[in-house]
Amino acid sequence: MRLKSIGIVHSPFKRVKDIPRECGSIVGEIEVFKEYEQGLEGVDRVSHLIILWLFHESKGYSLRVKPLHHEKVRGVFATRHPDRPNPIGFTVVELLERRGNVLGVRGVDMVDGTPVIDIKPRTYIWKSENEK
Amino acid sequence: MRLKSIGIVHSPFKRVKDIPRECGSIVGEIEVFKEYEQGLEGVDRVSHLIILWLFHESKGYSLRVKPLHHEKVRGVFATRHPDRPNPIGFTVVELLERRGNVLGVRGVDMVDGTPVIDIKPRTYIWKSENEK
Repeated sequence: MRLKSIGIVHSPFKRVKDIPRECGSIVGEIEVFKEYEQGLEGVDRVSHLIILWLFHESKGYSLRVKPLHHEKVRGVFATRHPDRPNPIGFTVVELLERRGNVLGVRGVDMVDGTPVIDIKPRTYIWKSENEK
Repeated sequence: MRLKSIGIVHSPFKRVKDIPRECGSIVGEIEVFKEYEQGLEGVDRVSHLIILWLFHESKGYSLRVKPLHHEKVRGVFATRHPDRPNPIGFTVVELLERRGNVLGVRGVDMVDGTPVIDIKPRTYIWKSENEK
């Protein structure tokens, strides 16, 4: 299967090495391309979103890697290392606001310009109770 | 980017319609193909794993969908519906045991034979404290 980019991350981090270990408070934006905007209908009922994105700077993969903040080499599936067989990243963000095709979010740990491939609700718990 | 399957799900559910809404107790296996087994090194230190997999039965996508257990039509990114621009599924499972390239897990909500594309630790909290 071939992946398509559905949007892009706007982040304060210009380079991977600028990203701190803890990003829970970092605010940024997920810009969904206009052609996919209709897919966001109702997204503002959700408090937290799963963002799947591409490690677009990753070149190839290793099965054993040295995680960023650890000393020991590990299997890549025991880490979040970018050099994976399928270089897909995973972040949970808090949804702060939606302005059309742009989501204001908190918890950004991606580099600016990262391609987004999917957005999902973290849970099925909606903000509003007036909901079937 | 082109995705490659790194393994397969063994699940008690033969068809999508057999899958109940709540799967937290369902036990199954993630079989990682032998060529990727080395990537599992150290995975048994993690209590919960994120599994990314393919909605391999999905044919094309819609931006507005009717979620399985809801009445109202919504934007696909506000749901976990299979018919997404990139048909990738997301499940958190509890790791029960590892036997070589096979992971015994709890919390399976995929159909038997589902292709697996990535495995990641849910958090960076390890089971053992004897760890740099």
